[in-house]
Amino acid sequence: MSIQYLPKSGLYASTGLNTYARLEYTKDISNATIAIIGVPWDDLATSRPGTRYGPQGIRNASSFILPNRKYNYVLDINPFEVAKIVDYGDVEVHAGYIEDMFNEVEKEVKEMLKKNSSVIPVVLGGDHSISLPVIRGLSSKYKKVAVVHVDAHHDSLDILYGKKYDHGTIFRRGVEEGVIIGESSVHYGVRVFSSKEDMESVRALGYDLLTMKIIDEEGLSKTVEQLKRKVGDQPVYLSIDIDVMDPAYAPGTGYPDPGGLTSREILEFVRKLYGLNIIGMDVVEVSPPYDVAEITSTLAASIVFEGLSIISKNLKK
Amino acid sequence: MSIQYLPKSGLYASTGLNTYARLEYTKDISNATIAIIGVPWDDLATSRPGTRYGPQGIRNASSFILPNRKYNYVLDINPFEVAKIVDYGDVEVHAGYIEDMFNEVEKEVKEMLKKNSSVIPVVLGGDHSISLPVIRGLSSKYKKVAVVHVDAHHDSLDILYGKKYDHGTIFRRGVEEGVIIGESSVHYGVRVFSSKEDMESVRALGYDLLTMKIIDEEGLSKTVEQLKRKVGDQPVYLSIDIDVMDPAYAPGTGYPDPGGLTSREILEFVRKLYGLNIIGMDVVEVSPPYDVAEITSTLAASIVFEGLSIISKNLKK
Amino acid sequence: MSIQYLPKSGLYASTGLNTYARLEYTKDISNATIAIIGVPWDDLATSRPGTRYGPQGIRNASSFILPNRKYNYVLDINPFEVAKIVDYGDVEVHAGYIEDMFNEVEKEVKEMLKKNSSVIPVVLGGDHSISLPVIRGLSSKYKKVAVVHVDAHHDSLDILYGKKYDHGTIFRRGVEEGVIIGESSVHYGVRVFSSKEDMESVRALGYDLLTMKIIDEEGLSKTVEQLKRKVGDQPVYLSIDIDVMDPAYAPGTGYPDPGGLTSREILEFVRKLYGLNIIGMDVVEVSPPYDVAEITSTLAASIVFEGLSIISKNLKK
Amino acid sequence: MSIQYLPKSGLYASTGLNTYARLEYTKDISNATIAIIGVPWDDLATSRPGTRYGPQGIRNASSFILPNRKYNYVLDINPFEVAKIVDYGDVEVHAGYIEDMFNEVEKEVKEMLKKNSSVIPVVLGGDHSISLPVIRGLSSKYKKVAVVHVDAHHDSLDILYGKKYDHGTIFRRGVEEGVIIGESSVHYGVRVFSSKEDMESVRALGYDLLTMKIIDEEGLSKTVEQLKRKVGDQPVYLSIDIDVMDPAYAPGTGYPDPGGLTSREILEFVRKLYGLNIIGMDVVEVSPPYDVAEITSTLAASIVFEGLSIISKNLKK
Amino acid sequence: MSIQYLPKSGLYASTGLNTYARLEYTKDISNATIAIIGVPWDDLATSRPGTRYGPQGIRNASSFILPNRKYNYVLDINPFEVAKIVDYGDVEVHAGYIEDMFNEVEKEVKEMLKKNSSVIPVVLGGDHSISLPVIRGLSSKYKKVAVVHVDAHHDSLDILYGKKYDHGTIFRRGVEEGVIIGESSVHYGVRVFSSKEDMESVRALGYDLLTMKIIDEEGLSKTVEQLKRKVGDQPVYLSIDIDVMDPAYAPGTGYPDPGGLTSREILEFVRKLYGLNIIGMDVVEVSPPYDVAEITSTLAASIVFEGLSIISKNLKK
Amino acid sequence: MSIQYLPKSGLYASTGLNTYARLEYTKDISNATIAIIGVPWDDLATSRPGTRYGPQGIRNASSFILPNRKYNYVLDINPFEVAKIVDYGDVEVHAGYIEDMFNEVEKEVKEMLKKNSSVIPVVLGGDHSISLPVIRGLSSKYKKVAVVHVDAHHDSLDILYGKKYDHGTIFRRGVEEGVIIGESSVHYGVRVFSSKEDMESVRALGYDLLTMKIIDEEGLSKTVEQLKRKVGDQPVYLSIDIDVMDPAYAPGTGYPDPGGLTSREILEFVRKLYGLNIIGMDVVEVSPPYDVAEITSTLAASIVFEGLSIISKNLKK
Repeated sequence: MSIQYLPKSGLYASTGLNTYARLEYTKDISNATIAIIGVPWDDLATSRPGTRYGPQGIRNASSFILPNRKYNYVLDINPFEVAKIVDYGDVEVHAGYIEDMFNEVEKEVKEMLKKNSSVIPVVLGGDHSISLPVIRGLSSKYKKVAVVHVDAHHDSLDILYGKKYDHGTIFRRGVEEGVIIGESSVHYGVRVFSSKEDMESVRALGYDLLTMKIIDEEGLSKTVEQLKRKVGDQPVYLSIDIDVMDPAYAPGTGYPDPGGLTSREILEFVRKLYGLNIIGMDVVEVSPPYDVAEITSTLAASIVFEGLSIISKNLKK
Repeated sequence: MSIQYLPKSGLYASTGLNTYARLEYTKDISNATIAIIGVPWDDLATSRPGTRYGPQGIRNASSFILPNRKYNYVLDINPFEVAKIVDYGDVEVHAGYIEDMFNEVEKEVKEMLKKNSSVIPVVLGGDHSISLPVIRGLSSKYKKVAVVHVDAHHDSLDILYGKKYDHGTIFRRGVEEGVIIGESSVHYGVRVFSSKEDMESVRALGYDLLTMKIIDEEGLSKTVEQLKRKVGDQPVYLSIDIDVMDPAYAPGTGYPDPGGLTSREILEFVRKLYGLNIIGMDVVEVSPPYDVAEITSTLAASIVFEGLSIISKNLKK
Repeated sequence: MSIQYLPKSGLYASTGLNTYARLEYTKDISNATIAIIGVPWDDLATSRPGTRYGPQGIRNASSFILPNRKYNYVLDINPFEVAKIVDYGDVEVHAGYIEDMFNEVEKEVKEMLKKNSSVIPVVLGGDHSISLPVIRGLSSKYKKVAVVHVDAHHDSLDILYGKKYDHGTIFRRGVEEGVIIGESSVHYGVRVFSSKEDMESVRALGYDLLTMKIIDEEGLSKTVEQLKRKVGDQPVYLSIDIDVMDPAYAPGTGYPDPGGLTSREILEFVRKLYGLNIIGMDVVEVSPPYDVAEITSTLAASIVFEGLSIISKNLKK
Repeated sequence: MSIQYLPKSGLYASTGLNTYARLEYTKDISNATIAIIGVPWDDLATSRPGTRYGPQGIRNASSFILPNRKYNYVLDINPFEVAKIVDYGDVEVHAGYIEDMFNEVEKEVKEMLKKNSSVIPVVLGGDHSISLPVIRGLSSKYKKVAVVHVDAHHDSLDILYGKKYDHGTIFRRGVEEGVIIGESSVHYGVRVFSSKEDMESVRALGYDLLTMKIIDEEGLSKTVEQLKRKVGDQPVYLSIDIDVMDPAYAPGTGYPDPGGLTSREILEFVRKLYGLNIIGMDVVEVSPPYDVAEITSTLAASIVFEGLSIISKNLKK
Repeated sequence: MSIQYLPKSGLYASTGLNTYARLEYTKDISNATIAIIGVPWDDLATSRPGTRYGPQGIRNASSFILPNRKYNYVLDINPFEVAKIVDYGDVEVHAGYIEDMFNEVEKEVKEMLKKNSSVIPVVLGGDHSISLPVIRGLSSKYKKVAVVHVDAHHDSLDILYGKKYDHGTIFRRGVEEGVIIGESSVHYGVRVFSSKEDMESVRALGYDLLTMKIIDEEGLSKTVEQLKRKVGDQPVYLSIDIDVMDPAYAPGTGYPDPGGLTSREILEFVRKLYGLNIIGMDVVEVSPPYDVAEITSTLAASIVFEGLSIISKNLKK
Repeated sequence: MSIQYLPKSGLYASTGLNTYARLEYTKDISNATIAIIGVPWDDLATSRPGTRYGPQGIRNASSFILPNRKYNYVLDINPFEVAKIVDYGDVEVHAGYIEDMFNEVEKEVKEMLKKNSSVIPVVLGGDHSISLPVIRGLSSKYKKVAVVHVDAHHDSLDILYGKKYDHGTIFRRGVEEGVIIGESSVHYGVRVFSSKEDMESVRALGYDLLTMKIIDEEGLSKTVEQLKRKVGDQPVYLSIDIDVMDPAYAPGTGYPDPGGLTSREILEFVRKLYGLNIIGMDVVEVSPPYDVAEITSTLAASIVFEGLSIISKNLKK
């Protein structure tokens, strides 16, 4: 017996269960194109915690803003018509046990690909450490991926507080482990550095640094072109840390840094990525306890929607 | 294929879909004893709105406080073991159209009883106007019911702002319509009156007025005994407006009135009702937008739990 | 005996009664040019309620930001010197009874025009459904009006959740009823569509769709010029839904959608409308319970101020 | 032309201007029994500011809780029928200039008594320093008054941070100035002391210290009897600092101290004062920016209501 | 050169650095009686995180409520005069690495005792898992301690989500490790159980269960007497989880449960423990991101103050 | 014995004492280049108070955003390496006594310069009135200074509410007192005027008015060039009122005005001032009680960081 998640009535956000965009909630992805999956984890938050509620916050927000605008008028596509998209639920992770989390997430992604090798996971974080096991999981199919990493921070440190594994070190680990192709990857919107050497050591991994300073000077279009040239035809993992936004647009995050992107820029940015071979995506570091009037969650839900749109549009070609 | 709502992990409220107490979410109540059902409605709020999010707020709160305490140690019972309890989802109601809401709710309750004539609905409000159509629906089986109405207000006015149907008039309408037995019914915790005549006109309907003044003077035990004598063996509909609480305990409501019950009193109150023939129950007027740190929703979820406990304990006799 | 609403002291927002900009509060508009009027209504809110507190929120905010800046230095005008502006108070509306609200608002506007046929009502909402009866009321004088509708949504649906009258359908109803001249009207800032057909069916009513995409590409100046050509010399009703703003600028609304206007754009937009024959105006969908630090109400009060400025400047010509 | 402050409609707190209990707002007190007056002042707040919004907060809260319960069922009286009560507005005070505030408030109270020598001022604070000039003003008629001072703090220090005049010193200054009769006065609910000598120096002024410890041990009834014996037939100024409450009941204050009164206690306390010759009253230290869901303002509005009730009941004798 | 933490001015909480009660901040405890120490940790929070800010929240709150009330008038003692009390700062812990945290905390406590074997640590949490390493550290001096554990939960599970070490298992681990004397220990205020067997398995460890039900029936005095008999002359570690409070009094915690203690009860409870041989103490699970108007932190700071008072009073004997 | 303020661990904002950027907290500035100093004062707030918590809020925010980004990658400088920067603590000011505050602040600044005549004070406000005594203090060394005043308001009124000294009059007083060189000074971002005469009377003092309108039309670069020409080689005091920002970026202030600067603009603006002879600086009007998710404090901390960067870069030349 089936239960409908999208009510007929006028009280969207208050009725029914809040899956992403009120999609079907299922572990059966045999004929799905895209599967939404959450990782409610915040153990590695440097400052303010709460990203464990990120998946829930994004789902709730999507439940009241998306049902009425499933059509992406800018890209002229309704991703829900073109693609079969489902909500796969959350990976169950154990607070306080990092290794377990890494294992659980990697295992879940591999399992998804085993169920359906062409499914594209769209992950709702969680702090940024979750991206590494997702990429590891994807490597079971793609070997190596290019990363388009959109973030105020480069998260490519070697050691943070004496530890190799942290939300600030994953994009170095990924290159070292051979699952990320540094030379085809980019940090976009980055603006936090501890020193000049810090910048150089990230570039030494192969990454381009498209800093906020460069974006300010050269604009969205030109920097995205540069990004696309760098990435080329590689399979791309798109990882968006909500703290790339200016805090005015995304207060609900752990480690805000003033001087970031606006809503219009991030949405346009994702749309401009159309054409890249995106094989996985995440939106991370949304922390609902620090959100106000759900604006961060609403934005994250919209970023995911743009992601679904460009992925679906690829399918239509 | 089944999806588990109760995760094994340590991040209760942040994982999975939030049904009440992470119960099964189903419209199949053929062998259910109790069915939780929400009515996300706030059109008749006199003052602060937001009770449309009441069912969602109570479900969320129940998801993180209940999984670890399914055993009611005071009554020595685990209602979820004794009774088959399910989450039936929400009635779909259309904001702005009162008559439609009355019809939809009544219809849904009748349908539930048609599916399973012994099921006991436990309703999550919603503003208080929703209790009337629930009682009307129950009358398809019980003809008339006694009401134990726990509230700061008696909601037994004749006319409110020129209207016969409002959240302040339903317990007069119910008596007039013949679905409530005034002589077996009680207003408990009531403390708002417009005049002496107002008090008398409520008593004229048959209701006892167990005001806060009387509760203060005579205590919980004595007033509950009086209540039970009044109610006798009648089938009882228990309707708890969260604003019976002192606002310190339940800030998240539309029309708070200082000088109400404490948490310990309301939980003990419900437990003391054990023995009454409860055939339906609601907790209404929870308004999450005005809640702080979810304390109102958490309390409401606990009140429902005590209600489930006494209903289940009856079954065990 | 008179009471002054503008105190001499340094504690603006905390002293006295908060009329709009601390204007005189009166029903006597015999020699008024502009009358501020509130409609505290939120029954038709799709998602988050609270717009019933919109008029109160805007008045409060205006009380502390406006007394010190009555001079519009950009337009070189003090509207309060040029025009006689009063605060007319609120229309009394009954929650839960839509037809009554429509009737009350229409009646009140007609009565205002009967008292003084040249008065220009500036309406503080309330959800967007209130604009329709205001326009109906204005039709008693103007027959038909052009609408400059500034909103994330076009509110020109045919049916919403099975109902013809809703905050999402009013600009279709207005054309059908013959009170809005579709061919002279514009939706500005719109960015939510359910399908391509949805877009076309709005254009079929005569409306121009100046979407956020177009505004992004062509800029404020060019799109306003296009708007003005469309509107021509018709009497104009300016209706501004605060959700046209990016949620960062206006979190206090029911149905936010990321990717909207900035404060500087909306204020400049209104100023650029100078020259149009504005015969009425509203700012709607401000929901103070979801506002933070009063930024939405403060912005709404400022938008109204710009509206008063361009209307007054017309008078001076 | 008259404007009605109490709307007929169902949206109390969102319609019209919020005077206390939607009473008439007037400076004409020639035939008034009681006049509500606000002092929006917080310059002397030791810790968290915001009491400048106290009068506004209390008026707003009273606007939505009082219209429906003008009858005090415990005392069997409707104060608004028995007494002529008006809202006199606020004293205009200049932030940052203490001496001016003292002068303005004293002058205003004297002027009220000159207009009508039998009027009883009921003052909405403001920080506690405002009570001294009110009492000074009252001394123009009564010479000296007994004070029933309900507060977590005794506010009877000699010097605070090197200053003689502060919100912590006024009840010493009042005795020294000869406007307070120390021997007939009481500090009730007090629980903050810097030393044993501190306690003794307060008793040396004549005051009884009815501490929370004593209230806990002896109960409300006995301590109020002791209070009444102490006060006798003197004209009484009742001064209630909201921080006498436990912070759970009144978070919206500058200097909270855990372990205070409950709502039921404070309301019953005021009612028990019936019979005293109350010639003035205040409720102070309500700080809306720190309030949650208006529970502090709602409680303060209710305390004022109980005060109005006992004052009115005296008139009826 | 010394810097004073207690300013002379009237703006306590806004001036200077917020150590506990504005005490000296030092690692030199050679002649200290009591050392305040924080553990900013929340990795093991089951539900809502944020206890990493607990030490900071309690220090801030203490900075504005304590400077004026250093005298405990109920116990007639000023702990800061009788004992040398210092603020030792925080243990530095690494988010996400539980074993490290256990080691760091234990090491720090041992080091403190090495510096000064008679120092009594008063610990500010942090989630409850931090109590175990503190007790382990104390065992370097005391071998075994009795525990007075005040909490809504017993935290004596065997396994939680498949893990032996969690904030819900520490009081079982402590007995197993031989650092807690189960037979001399008590859970006070406990009210969450998963089953009857759960209750029995805790009693099997030796603990008394003084549940809320028993406290309600027998009162504070009688239950504390029973507690004291149980504990006897053993060295006592007092561990207070703020969630023992009713959520109205302590909303700022991760795992609230309605029906708990009031402020007056907890403060009186601690005072009644006077006479026990307390050799360490903690207040844990304060989560400032979920606090409102700092009431939870203020209460926690006051509970610590009562603890300091009874410990100091012991010294005076 | 030294205590480290910058912990090694991953929980920045929750560990240790929050000095600015976790700098050393000391009154010894004998070899310091720059000294951070707070003035926790809000007595002259026109509207919403709370700036007394400004210094604390900025320090807290700096503690979690700055430790990881001490390198200013845009200017290629780490100010903490180039300059010796310390946190000097707060000036102790007495609420309610303006003259005392003026004296204390002036005295403190003079004392700093006496200790080390080349130290540059960077002041954290407080309401804007604090800038005047800082400038007076600086005049002990520099005689007169040019002011770069960044603010929505010009604060150059003659009289405000009958008072010469207020946060709205200081930049007129400074010129009159001869400590500010009007002809070399600029108001930047200003947008609030009471009349045309108001604008002219400010220009008559010598100030340039670089209004938001001009900034919108001419852009950041051109207006900063104009500013620099105006200022020339004079010693410059840079005073930044956070309300120059659009309220979306800085809700936590007393007197917000929509239509202001964005984060990216203000940070770029400060960087562009590089080259000016800055001899003192402040960031004022940050009001944490009205802040949301610390975004205003975070931005203010970042503005200070940019200020430190350009001052330090000057030293390097």
